[in-house]
Formats: sequence, structure tokens, C-alpha cells
Amino acid sequence: MGGVRTTERERVPKQDRSRATRQRLLEAAVACLAEHGWAGSTVAAVAERAGVSRGAAQHHFPTREDLFTAAVEYVSEERSLALRALFPDGPADRRAVVAALVDLYTGPLFRAALHLWVAAGDEDQLRPRVTELETRVGRETHRIAVELLGADESRPGVRETVQGLLDMARGLGLANLLTDDSARRERVVAQWAALLDAGLG
Amino acid sequence: MGGVRTTERERVPKQDRSRATRQRLLEAAVACLAEHGWAGSTVAAVAERAGVSRGAAQHHFPTREDLFTAAVEYVSEERSLALRALFPDGPADRRAVVAALVDLYTGPLFRAALHLWVAAGDEDQLRPRVTELETRVGRETHRIAVELLGADESRPGVRETVQGLLDMARGLGLANLLTDDSARRERVVAQWAALLDAGLG
Repeated sequence: MGGVRTTERERVPKQDRSRATRQRLLEAAVACLAEHGWAGSTVAAVAERAGVSRGAAQHHFPTREDLFTAAVEYVSEERSLALRALFPDGPADRRAVVAALVDLYTGPLFRAALHLWVAAGDEDQLRPRVTELETRVGRETHRIAVELLGADESRPGVRETVQGLLDMARGLGLANLLTDDSARRERVVAQWAALLDAGLG
Repeated sequence: MGGVRTTERERVPKQDRSRATRQRLLEAAVACLAEHGWAGSTVAAVAERAGVSRGAAQHHFPTREDLFTAAVEYVSEERSLALRALFPDGPADRRAVVAALVDLYTGPLFRAALHLWVAAGDEDQLRPRVTELETRVGRETHRIAVELLGADESRPGVRETVQGLLDMARGLGLANLLTDDSARRERVVAQWAALLDAGLG
């Protein structure tokens, strides 16, 4: 009995350590991808950046594709949670919601995801993984957008209105890639939030 | 006098040949960028693809940056001309115009431009060239959109409505990168063309 308790006690911190290592690797992978692109992103480079041995990194993520798709998914989930936390009472002021949705597509995560998308266009091993990831993340973002905008998808056109908004948000992310586009973006967001208000009723 | 005429006669075909070579290089450069990305796109690879000697290619485009930014600009101009030619009488049915604008961002040119953008994010030599190119091409596309949509930019919000539409078109281009998104895209275009119609008055 005493022996079992000791084992349990030892196991918990070990699981915690393993989870913390995994998380450090995922965050380092997104940062690496955002800064150096797919060509400069390897499991070894990420392990070094995270301060984790290469062996430990490979234990968590056997292949490069595993590591980077898991990283983009993990950070996307974190951002989705943060977005929901911004509006804890559900449907909110539409301009604020549109601005927050657009913010999902600026910053290092979007840059990292973009590198992954573009690389997936050229690499057969990566393409199905990224396509599947994009479908999953896209669905979840759509679900959050519908909820926070208080959109009634049973009405004709509402689904496509929300989809087009998220397409616009992605396009704004692209426009911000090389220069700081925030002033223009703010004006576009204000105007499109008004159009959306009319479209969603 | 006779000597001058002979020289003129010889010069014209030579200029034509030079222009044709330049054009072949530009088209090959866009195709190369779309297929192999920035890492796989060199002046030598494009010369080979275009069936032009490496020396001749370097005569036209001394650096890799010269060749690929010129290529994206050239093909963008060609597409702008083709877009205007679709609507020779100016302002036209808005759904048709929105669909044609969105079409600018699908296909090999968008794929090539995206590779160039993403590479420019990481390369200091390329960034100012691509930023300047994007500003120029973006302004011209905006001008055409305003004209074909019959949008009155003196009215508040109209400028931002058109800008947001072009951002949406770019986002739809991204969504089409890994999978054929045309069915969904058509529904989004129909819905936003209707919202835009209301927004533009």
C-alpha cells in the first residue's frame, strides 16, 4: 500500500513535467515557424529553442509534421479560449466582436499558420495534415463567431455572411504581413461591422 | 539615308525579340514561383524553363529580386487589363463584378504572389520591393473595383466597404490554396454581393 502511494506521488509530477515540456515545445514551434518559415523549422531547432533535449522532443513528436501541425492546433485552441473569455456573457457588441475575430489573424500565430499553409501547397506529406487541421480550426472559429455575433444561421444567407466575414479577417491578416496595417484595418472593421449588423438583422 | 533605313529595319525585330524574351521570362518566373516557392525559384531555373540562356536572363534581370517582383507585377497588370476587358462598358452587375474581383485571387498568380509575400516577411532584401509592389498593385485593383462597382467614394464608408471586399477576396484566395473551395466561395460571393449592394446604395 505504502509502495503504491509513493509511486502515485512520483507519477503525478512526472506527468506534469511531461505536459510542461510538450507545451514548451509547441510554443517554441509556433515562434520558430513564424520567424524562420517551414524551411528553417526542424524538430532539432525547436528542441534547442525550448531548452529540451532532441530525444525528448522526438519522444513527444516523432516527425516534423507532427510537431508543427500540433503546434498550430494548440495555439489556435489557446486563442479560441482567449476569444471566448473576452466575451464571457455570450453575444456582445458586434463591432467589438468583429475586431476580436480579426485580431485572430494578426500576430505570430497567423504568420506561423501561413508558413505552414504555403509549405503544405508544395509538400505532399504535409498537405493532408494541414487541410484537416484547417477544417477543424475553421469550424471552431465559425462556431465561436456565430455565437458571439448572436447570428441566427437558420435564416438564409446568415451562414455565408459569417463565412465572408472570416474570409475578410484572413485577408486583413495577409495585408498586415509586411507592414503595420492597423489604422486602415480599424476603419474597415468599423464599416464591415455596420454592414454585418444590417446583414444579420 | 539607305544605311539608316537598314539599321531601323534591323532594330525593330531585335527589340521585338528582346520584348518577347522578357515576357517569356516573366511568365516562366510566375509559374516557377507558384509551383516551387521562393526557395526553389532562381534566375537559372526560370531561364531554363523559358528556354532562354542564363546570360540573356541576367541581362534582363540582374538579380533574383528584380526578376520575381517584375514577374508578379507584369502578370498582375495583365490580369487587371483582362478584368477591365470583361466589363468594357464600365459599371456592371455587382454580383458579376464581385465574382470577377474574387477570381483575381485564385489561381497561379495569387499562389506566386503569396510565396513572394511570405518570403519577403523573412528576407530584408526582398521586403521593401514587395511592399512597394503590393502598394502599387493594390491601388490599381482598388481603382478598378471602385469603377466597376460604380461606387461613390465621396460617400462615407464606401471606400472602406470596397477595401473590405478586396480583403475578403484575398482571404477567399487563401481558403482556396489547399483545396477546391469554389462551391463555398460562390455562395459567399452571392451573399456579400447582396450586402454590398445595400452598402453602396
